[in-house]
Amino acid sequence: MNELELIETIRRRAGRPFRAGMLAGIGDDCAVFRPSPKRGDLVFTTDLLLEEVHFRPATHSAADVGHKALARGLSDIAAMGGRPVFCLVSLAVPDWAGARWIGGFYRGLLSLARAHRTLLAGGDLARARQFACDIIVCGLVPRGAALRRDTARAGDEIWVSGLLGGSALGLALGRGAAWARHRRPAPRIALGVSLRRLGATSAMDLSDGLSLDLHRLARESGVAAAIDRPLPVFHGATLEQALHGGEDYELVFTVPPGRKIPGRLHGVPLTRLGTMVAGESGAVWFFGRRLPRRGYDHFRAGATPGASARRA
Amino acid sequence: MNELELIETIRRRAGRPFRAGMLAGIGDDCAVFRPSPKRGDLVFTTDLLLEEVHFRPATHSAADVGHKALARGLSDIAAMGGRPVFCLVSLAVPDWAGARWIGGFYRGLLSLARAHRTLLAGGDLARARQFACDIIVCGLVPRGAALRRDTARAGDEIWVSGLLGGSALGLALGRGAAWARHRRPAPRIALGVSLRRLGATSAMDLSDGLSLDLHRLARESGVAAAIDRPLPVFHGATLEQALHGGEDYELVFTVPPGRKIPGRLHGVPLTRLGTMVAGESGAVWFFGRRLPRRGYDHFRAGATPGASARRA
Repeated sequence: MNELELIETIRRRAGRPFRAGMLAGIGDDCAVFRPSPKRGDLVFTTDLLLEEVHFRPATHSAADVGHKALARGLSDIAAMGGRPVFCLVSLAVPDWAGARWIGGFYRGLLSLARAHRTLLAGGDLARARQFACDIIVCGLVPRGAALRRDTARAGDEIWVSGLLGGSALGLALGRGAAWARHRRPAPRIALGVSLRRLGATSAMDLSDGLSLDLHRLARESGVAAAIDRPLPVFHGATLEQALHGGEDYELVFTVPPGRKIPGRLHGVPLTRLGTMVAGESGAVWFFGRRLPRRGYDHFRAGATPGASARRA
Repeated sequence: MNELELIETIRRRAGRPFRAGMLAGIGDDCAVFRPSPKRGDLVFTTDLLLEEVHFRPATHSAADVGHKALARGLSDIAAMGGRPVFCLVSLAVPDWAGARWIGGFYRGLLSLARAHRTLLAGGDLARARQFACDIIVCGLVPRGAALRRDTARAGDEIWVSGLLGGSALGLALGRGAAWARHRRPAPRIALGVSLRRLGATSAMDLSDGLSLDLHRLARESGVAAAIDRPLPVFHGATLEQALHGGEDYELVFTVPPGRKIPGRLHGVPLTRLGTMVAGESGAVWFFGRRLPRRGYDHFRAGATPGASARRA
């Protein structure tokens, strides 16, 4: 299969542009999108998915990899309280990934895309030694309503969605419900929209572990975070996995003090963790003790390709 | 330097969002952009730049690589007749690229970005075995005015900007004006805008060689292309390099028959190549003979990483 044939296959599978406003998709130099003036702000995210860093060809199916590549981008859209509109996919393909594997990759990706009404509108293809996928997702939020990281205030309550540590546990076990969760994370799109409507003051998604991601949220907002309630730990996971394990793709968010938040929304449990407090910007306190940042840092001394796959 | 410090450094260098409509840039889950209802359609492109495929660390400086990564994306915006607004950069960094190299990469990228008033609005970072950069550029075109690939008509004149084969020659020589051209391609943004205003009926940029790219343009438009005039060959390049060499990043475009086109625009020569004709969709005729497609195809049998760097 040559490049033109491969692009034709992808274009056929992606289908005709079905979103209002998408004027041109796969096949031109650019995708063309006409924003509706009534529909608000656009949000954009880009996320890499790398062989040995974010998945292993031996244990993750092609469809798993396609699902996860898009799920990472959709999770960022969810963290802004947005709804996805379209995505672009850049793919660097090594020799071990033949036409059948690439077909499986797009099957996994497009299945998740359809479930979230996200159009595959374009991308790029190249050969490489190491598999790399970069996913770009464009989403919509009402004007001025995007949930940001830098808008939490001292006194706000800190909440988290779902159960933590499941992805890290799944990676360690390689089987069962936790493994399914690691392979096929569920982006919290509907939840993000509801949290925005409930008046959340900030939000971000948990990709690198609660300890590191909550630090980032607190630091961008110029406050400290104090956790003083039990974490919602995934069944069988350790507290370490729940605190520092990456790739749970849940949402951590803040709400004004006393705001009524349901215990479960769109089938996902919501748990209060603690309170944003004045103090050293970015500090995270766990039952009164300083929490070390042990989430995954790609550029930490000693971090090497593959380390993320052992990030728990 | 850890990941947070690296992101801080990039954010400082990128500067504050200076484009109207950019509400949030580096540091959040997503970049946030508010399109102005009067300003028209948005165009989006994504382009990979890979070690050994698109550059070699031994011969290309870090700033060259940063320049070229963005130039590839800007060239796609030019091909749509658009003006760039912002970009996102995903970077997979191998061990050989230290903090100093990454600094040089962003220096080259941001220098070209400033020259074209393009804001660096976000991205992603990861460690990898092979250097990979994916660039995403968002541009603006007036409503309905994007120059597409699928709108050339039989009878339209075929034109090309600049001189062809310079990049392939430069890669073969490794020095001189041709080498400078290979290392630092100039995206034809101002030219693309002018061609749109002059009433071009279609356009695309030359990244994989005239023979392959003109085939793509003709095929998308459902017509054939007949070249019956001398090519504007870069000084010292061969006809083969001009026909099949990649990475010239010039624009090939069509205009209605008889449309007055200047011989030079924004300092770039414009040359008529021939005419779009009815016939087999995608066929390219060169002085009456069928032109083989020998431009660079990443998925052609025998194409291997590194081949593109010898694509001439």
